[in-house]
Amino acid sequence: MALKTAKEYIDSLRARKLNLYLFGELVENPVDNPIIRPSTNAVAMTYKLAHEPETEELATTKSMLTGEKVNRFNSLFKSPDDMVKKIKLLRRLGQRTSCCFQRCVGMDGINAVFSTTYDIDQKCGTEYHQRFRKWLTYVQREDLCIQGAMTDTKGQRGVAPSQQADPDQFVHIVERRNDGIVIRGAKANQTGSVNSHEMLVMPTLNLREGDEDYAVACALPMDTEGITLIYGRQSCDLRKLEEGDIDVGNFNFGAHETLTILDNVFVPWDRVFMCGEREFAITLVERFAGYHRQSYGGCKPGISDVLIGAVASVADYTGVRKASHVRDKIAEMIHLSESLHGEGLACAYEGTKTEAGNYQPDLLLANVCKHNVTRFPYEIVRLAQDIAGGILVTTPSEKDLRHPVLGKYIDKYLRAVPDVPTEDRLRMIALLHSMTFGLTALNYQAESMHGAGSPMAQRIMIERLTDMDAKQKLARSIAGIDKREDVLA
Amino acid sequence: MALKTAKEYIDSLRARKLNLYLFGELVENPVDNPIIRPSTNAVAMTYKLAHEPETEELATTKSMLTGEKVNRFNSLFKSPDDMVKKIKLLRRLGQRTSCCFQRCVGMDGINAVFSTTYDIDQKCGTEYHQRFRKWLTYVQREDLCIQGAMTDTKGQRGVAPSQQADPDQFVHIVERRNDGIVIRGAKANQTGSVNSHEMLVMPTLNLREGDEDYAVACALPMDTEGITLIYGRQSCDLRKLEEGDIDVGNFNFGAHETLTILDNVFVPWDRVFMCGEREFAITLVERFAGYHRQSYGGCKPGISDVLIGAVASVADYTGVRKASHVRDKIAEMIHLSESLHGEGLACAYEGTKTEAGNYQPDLLLANVCKHNVTRFPYEIVRLAQDIAGGILVTTPSEKDLRHPVLGKYIDKYLRAVPDVPTEDRLRMIALLHSMTFGLTALNYQAESMHGAGSPMAQRIMIERLTDMDAKQKLARSIAGIDKREDVLA
Amino acid sequence: MALKTAKEYIDSLRARKLNLYLFGELVENPVDNPIIRPSTNAVAMTYKLAHEPETEELATTKSMLTGEKVNRFNSLFKSPDDMVKKIKLLRRLGQRTSCCFQRCVGMDGINAVFSTTYDIDQKCGTEYHQRFRKWLTYVQREDLCIQGAMTDTKGQRGVAPSQQADPDQFVHIVERRNDGIVIRGAKANQTGSVNSHEMLVMPTLNLREGDEDYAVACALPMDTEGITLIYGRQSCDLRKLEEGDIDVGNFNFGAHETLTILDNVFVPWDRVFMCGEREFAITLVERFAGYHRQSYGGCKPGISDVLIGAVASVADYTGVRKASHVRDKIAEMIHLSESLHGEGLACAYEGTKTEAGNYQPDLLLANVCKHNVTRFPYEIVRLAQDIAGGILVTTPSEKDLRHPVLGKYIDKYLRAVPDVPTEDRLRMIALLHSMTFGLTALNYQAESMHGAGSPMAQRIMIERLTDMDAKQKLARSIAGIDKREDVLA
Amino acid sequence: MALKTAKEYIDSLRARKLNLYLFGELVENPVDNPIIRPSTNAVAMTYKLAHEPETEELATTKSMLTGEKVNRFNSLFKSPDDMVKKIKLLRRLGQRTSCCFQRCVGMDGINAVFSTTYDIDQKCGTEYHQRFRKWLTYVQREDLCIQGAMTDTKGQRGVAPSQQADPDQFVHIVERRNDGIVIRGAKANQTGSVNSHEMLVMPTLNLREGDEDYAVACALPMDTEGITLIYGRQSCDLRKLEEGDIDVGNFNFGAHETLTILDNVFVPWDRVFMCGEREFAITLVERFAGYHRQSYGGCKPGISDVLIGAVASVADYTGVRKASHVRDKIAEMIHLSESLHGEGLACAYEGTKTEAGNYQPDLLLANVCKHNVTRFPYEIVRLAQDIAGGILVTTPSEKDLRHPVLGKYIDKYLRAVPDVPTEDRLRMIALLHSMTFGLTALNYQAESMHGAGSPMAQRIMIERLTDMDAKQKLARSIAGIDKREDVLA
Repeated sequence: MALKTAKEYIDSLRARKLNLYLFGELVENPVDNPIIRPSTNAVAMTYKLAHEPETEELATTKSMLTGEKVNRFNSLFKSPDDMVKKIKLLRRLGQRTSCCFQRCVGMDGINAVFSTTYDIDQKCGTEYHQRFRKWLTYVQREDLCIQGAMTDTKGQRGVAPSQQADPDQFVHIVERRNDGIVIRGAKANQTGSVNSHEMLVMPTLNLREGDEDYAVACALPMDTEGITLIYGRQSCDLRKLEEGDIDVGNFNFGAHETLTILDNVFVPWDRVFMCGEREFAITLVERFAGYHRQSYGGCKPGISDVLIGAVASVADYTGVRKASHVRDKIAEMIHLSESLHGEGLACAYEGTKTEAGNYQPDLLLANVCKHNVTRFPYEIVRLAQDIAGGILVTTPSEKDLRHPVLGKYIDKYLRAVPDVPTEDRLRMIALLHSMTFGLTALNYQAESMHGAGSPMAQRIMIERLTDMDAKQKLARSIAGIDKREDVLA
Repeated sequence: MALKTAKEYIDSLRARKLNLYLFGELVENPVDNPIIRPSTNAVAMTYKLAHEPETEELATTKSMLTGEKVNRFNSLFKSPDDMVKKIKLLRRLGQRTSCCFQRCVGMDGINAVFSTTYDIDQKCGTEYHQRFRKWLTYVQREDLCIQGAMTDTKGQRGVAPSQQADPDQFVHIVERRNDGIVIRGAKANQTGSVNSHEMLVMPTLNLREGDEDYAVACALPMDTEGITLIYGRQSCDLRKLEEGDIDVGNFNFGAHETLTILDNVFVPWDRVFMCGEREFAITLVERFAGYHRQSYGGCKPGISDVLIGAVASVADYTGVRKASHVRDKIAEMIHLSESLHGEGLACAYEGTKTEAGNYQPDLLLANVCKHNVTRFPYEIVRLAQDIAGGILVTTPSEKDLRHPVLGKYIDKYLRAVPDVPTEDRLRMIALLHSMTFGLTALNYQAESMHGAGSPMAQRIMIERLTDMDAKQKLARSIAGIDKREDVLA
Repeated sequence: MALKTAKEYIDSLRARKLNLYLFGELVENPVDNPIIRPSTNAVAMTYKLAHEPETEELATTKSMLTGEKVNRFNSLFKSPDDMVKKIKLLRRLGQRTSCCFQRCVGMDGINAVFSTTYDIDQKCGTEYHQRFRKWLTYVQREDLCIQGAMTDTKGQRGVAPSQQADPDQFVHIVERRNDGIVIRGAKANQTGSVNSHEMLVMPTLNLREGDEDYAVACALPMDTEGITLIYGRQSCDLRKLEEGDIDVGNFNFGAHETLTILDNVFVPWDRVFMCGEREFAITLVERFAGYHRQSYGGCKPGISDVLIGAVASVADYTGVRKASHVRDKIAEMIHLSESLHGEGLACAYEGTKTEAGNYQPDLLLANVCKHNVTRFPYEIVRLAQDIAGGILVTTPSEKDLRHPVLGKYIDKYLRAVPDVPTEDRLRMIALLHSMTFGLTALNYQAESMHGAGSPMAQRIMIERLTDMDAKQKLARSIAGIDKREDVLA
Repeated sequence: MALKTAKEYIDSLRARKLNLYLFGELVENPVDNPIIRPSTNAVAMTYKLAHEPETEELATTKSMLTGEKVNRFNSLFKSPDDMVKKIKLLRRLGQRTSCCFQRCVGMDGINAVFSTTYDIDQKCGTEYHQRFRKWLTYVQREDLCIQGAMTDTKGQRGVAPSQQADPDQFVHIVERRNDGIVIRGAKANQTGSVNSHEMLVMPTLNLREGDEDYAVACALPMDTEGITLIYGRQSCDLRKLEEGDIDVGNFNFGAHETLTILDNVFVPWDRVFMCGEREFAITLVERFAGYHRQSYGGCKPGISDVLIGAVASVADYTGVRKASHVRDKIAEMIHLSESLHGEGLACAYEGTKTEAGNYQPDLLLANVCKHNVTRFPYEIVRLAQDIAGGILVTTPSEKDLRHPVLGKYIDKYLRAVPDVPTEDRLRMIALLHSMTFGLTALNYQAESMHGAGSPMAQRIMIERLTDMDAKQKLARSIAGIDKREDVLA
């Protein structure tokens, strides 16, 4: 089956009957909803690039399962090179959409579930891996969009799932039947769920004895009975409903998250990939985290490219671009962004093969990559606000600009370099506003902070992945506590 | 005349006939406009504190002109202690409103114009100072709210006012008449103009030969003919129009900026405080900057107090407050905020008397204070986003919460610590969202960056205010290039 | 009795019979030892400034005990102004010596013991305070140099003094006699002990039940029987023994620390100021810490002045001073240094009176000051190394410079701006080397880190000194969890 | 010919007759000089690893010229993988020596000269490339140690070589003869020159018209007539002459730099690789810089491993290792160090082939790598000083420890965790001191700052290597200034 075009992808979404709510109301037609559509467009770009000659090699690959050409987002990483191409693809998509394009969780989840099911089967004699291969083959052939569903609502932090006051704070198995299982709970902060055909449910943390029912991984079509999606608010979301296209900043693209309720949802056995093997929950989580922490070394530098281009443009428009301090700040923005990209590439190149045959990135470097992502974008935003000037947060509305009298005032007084149209300047500032405060600001800030795990999660992994004994041995030898090395020996 | 209560202040605004536009439409009644009113409330708080026993000493003082009790925002600083109290007042107001309360520019402008007019008169034999004293006495007695109007639209940066392609990019005198002057131009990023009775126009930068017409300072009632105000957009501004009070984050308070057009506005001579004395423009600007750079050491720590309190609360609500990394981050937020406050106090205490008799802060320390303000709040925001968690940017809407079915889901699944009501958690997150992305985020970020001058302006002053020769001499003596000090001599 | 001159001070040291070891050998004459003398000179400067007209007001004050003029280092702070002058004095001394001048621990200890003894007496009916006043009157009149001795060797961290494997890891009372007490233990990192007449022993941390014997404060002449001083190594210490005066960087001044052993030392009762009142140990420690954390806002900016002057000079000498990035880095160095100074001043101005009548700085701001001191000097050093260039760590020796053949090569090839003598450049680089790697580097780095408590100590205090309930209440009100404020009420 | 062992390498150095001065005196036997020998040992380690089974694959490779096995330091990079192995080798060497091992400049210079001579020949019809291949074949077969000699003394910065007051401030051709050329000038900050067999002279900056004589590259045996080496001072250099092995910190290893005078040195034509082709100077410099900026992503993380191991050890020794803030700081140190390593790897993997056939790293990422190296090690040092405690700069000397009476005091009082010998603690602290202030501190700080170019050099390259037009186009499209992308098209 041929890879879907962007249009085919969008049309394919119409067939679903989602139980989706936005601002307290059921959304009958999410695809054409002006609040939602930009996020759908961003996902559509992942389909579009598979058909563009220049990006085809990045956006598609040969399936490890079938040898057929598939969209990279549904693929298994057959080599470090596949992971490198992933990073370069994500950067391109960040450049093209200037926001989150929502498919990385699915891609990264697929790869983590693939190897983990293999390991479970090896140890437990189960058959999850074959089931998963079959499901994934279907996904690849139908070219579906898969949403990775990991983050539980978590209740009181630090309390185990089975010890929570409300046992539903983590998704869990409430019934095991002959034909499948029934699960209940909710997944929070679910990126791109409305734009997906299916969701891949995974556990969210290490499970201990007594938490067996929380060890569940499975696949669900988004419109399965019992699923309710509640669309999250975003900064400036209502601007999408306004006339005009300036104030929204990024008119075409965006993202979204939902709170996804799973209220006694039935899953047939052929879609169940983990069911009670609690000791593998952390394996799955850590592998997923490794893949996903790498991802941020792709998308965020891509978004940075747009942000840096916008900053350079507003500096051009006011005539300060050549000022040494402006050049210096822009160089710093580039430096920080490329640092992230380099680290995303490094952990890919240093990747290793799993028992199941797909590859995973170097985990230490992947954590290091993501950890810098929790810092550098914030500094880039700060520098962007510096160069943008105070007007970033005080622009008149597009309606003012279109007003016969006010429009003339605005055109006259907000013109800086004479031959740059005032509207161009306002558009560029609106884009910067949307990226630093508005609709897509969360993609560059809060998502950089918490996506793929909050900073503390990386610190814990960095500590754990380090062989401190080896380092201490080096120090003891140099210090002469252990016998010093004889260089002539 | 008694100091106005908050209510009297708000009522007094109704008498004005502003030419104000919002989203392309004339606003007949700004006081009761739901977009605008929160900003009026924030200013009203400056009147309210003058009547509260606990804050009266901070919010009022004895007039240097009349000996009468006046609102501190309309006062001249008679001592370092007056400037210390200013900083403490601003912190209180930041705590009470969690946003910009808009009156500092006026207060700081009054003090700068006071001493500068004195100096002009001394040198030029003019009589600006007496005029200004008279006007200020009126302002104090009527307890008016004065908006400081400094920032010109500036056109192409680096080009002198008189050399701009459009000569109106800086406000200037277009006609000198027997009864007064006519001015034209526009002031950008005008904080609180809609909530003011009068504006105090000042030049915005150093003026060179040929720029004489740009050397103009004067006072204008906000509804003077020829003035048009265009209300600036703010992140999430439309949330103020929604039902409910959660999603807006800070329901009561806010701020605003306008683009203020001055289209051939007439100013009678008794309201003109500078008219062509171009060499005093920079004096006025630097003095104003000194006062205003200090101010940020008051308001931002006040806003930080709310932000830190909100962060601690959401940490309480999820049960992570005692985690060592959370405590550490909160301690860091406090540290950064108190650093700013300490510097705001230091430059006040180290203040010196002007020739005219009022006091100004130590300029080097005031610049240092503001320069840190362009950095630390951003790091505080980053830490706040860290602790807040991903839900900061994915909360369901208040309408979802009020929905009979969805509401139950939300109450169940977004409850963390069992005995904390979910709505409380959502409210606190909404407040954090408004402070980091939404309606008041600009007050803590972009305004910290650009208010009272962008970072480069402080660096220039820091360099200029440093006696580098003295430092080099110290180094030469220690190094033995100059004769070394004999400690026994 | 008149205040000692520098020379009188140095001569007065000769009368002591110290039991001092340096490099494993007993030092008979510390005053004229070339390794030690620079540190004595630095202390002598504190005497010298008391006689210089320009600094007399800073360096002396009226005794709170006698009304007589005394050296500020032996004085009680009678007002916030006294603490402000202290900070300004310390800055001057940092400028003049470019190193630690060693007397702050004593001054800060005196003030902390003064108020703590008062409080003990109030509660316990003891008479420590009168004893202390008497001793201090003697110290003031004799114009002695007092070393504050607080830091114990501590043994295993986290274990209480009385629970240590070796009970002597904290100084403690081993015998209570009719005529006094006997103490044992050791004080580590003792700054300036060799240059002092007496040491003021204080406990170092909070004491719990069972630790009573560790609650001891007293005064001891430095040559009391049982005291052994072991002089600590410093970077490049041997350069002081070389011919010439260039390579050492700072020829005249330096500092030192000793490990001070107290091996069954007898203290007569009239010199005992705490003896078993364990609950006051933490009071004394925290008050001392408040004073001493403030101190760093004086001395470090003073040393920074020299460092910045040196950096500007080497930039002059190579012709890069006007480069925008060099100017920018120097402006940053100034900014960071003045930030520290501002905070040192702020906590002084905001000081409050103790029950005993002397003043202490605002504790929160004092901790904030010191906490920045654990960061900013490191960044200043980094910037200094940037501007200094690679030659900072590769200069030929002074002996090479004096060599008939090599000297010509060096003069020729290390000359940058033609009219600056090569030797001047080498001297300035040597100074920078000594401040960043060499003899005085520790004063600007490790001492900034650990003096007056390591960073974690400040974070703990910052957390403790914050009224978080008040902040959370503010947030709850703004968020509408508590009833929102009615601005018109 | 077989690869040299460490011993054979050291013996081979004895054959040279260097004109080397140290502290103003001629050094007859540098190999056995205690000041110099540790640096020789560090280079020897590069020979030793070629013979260790575990490191052989990193330390050797197949020659691109002859197919023979050669030491990697003398090799051309035949693939990205060769550059990856380089980085991993450098990390190993940093771990083993804890200092600069001095051979990277040679290796990186060889690769830069190789491709540049190829390009010159292509354009100018010269035969430098064949000469260079011949020389390099000789170097590989003899397994020589080559010192890269680039940094000129530079005179007044910003003035072209031919415009300097002293024309010798940059090495230049003073005579062209039939049999070769004569050059004059000096190279500053020459790492490892005393331990090398030959030096590879290269120009140091972009050359303009009139600077032709400064465009010179050639190879010289270190003992060529006319060469004088002046050994640079290092922090604590005299400790190498002391008895004992503790206080020096790193007893076995170190590095050095010399000021290398070239006073009318004759170079035969077969060793001349550039002679007047001034437009290729910048090509050579930038290629070299690319290679060398990458190198720091290897050696510095290697040194960091030792530093982190030492810090963890001293934390063990005092019992604070498990404290959350200590763990957090160590995690941060690891994070920063691995960030550098990841970037070193990334630019290697992303390398590209030159026309001449060897590979060079991705230049943008190489600059990004080095630019972080100018920052992160300083923060790592700051954290190390934090954890080390004040004792870092106050330890008694080894002589005190060996003293019969003092030694017992020291053993007793500086013991922290009871079962850790005090001497172990002192040794580890001495190592930390040497890495942060002492003998090898410059390798981790000043060298990180200036080696391979000062920070500004990287910023310039980062700016130049960025396609800003592409970024601005992205921004214009998203903002709707250029036609927005139609996602369905």
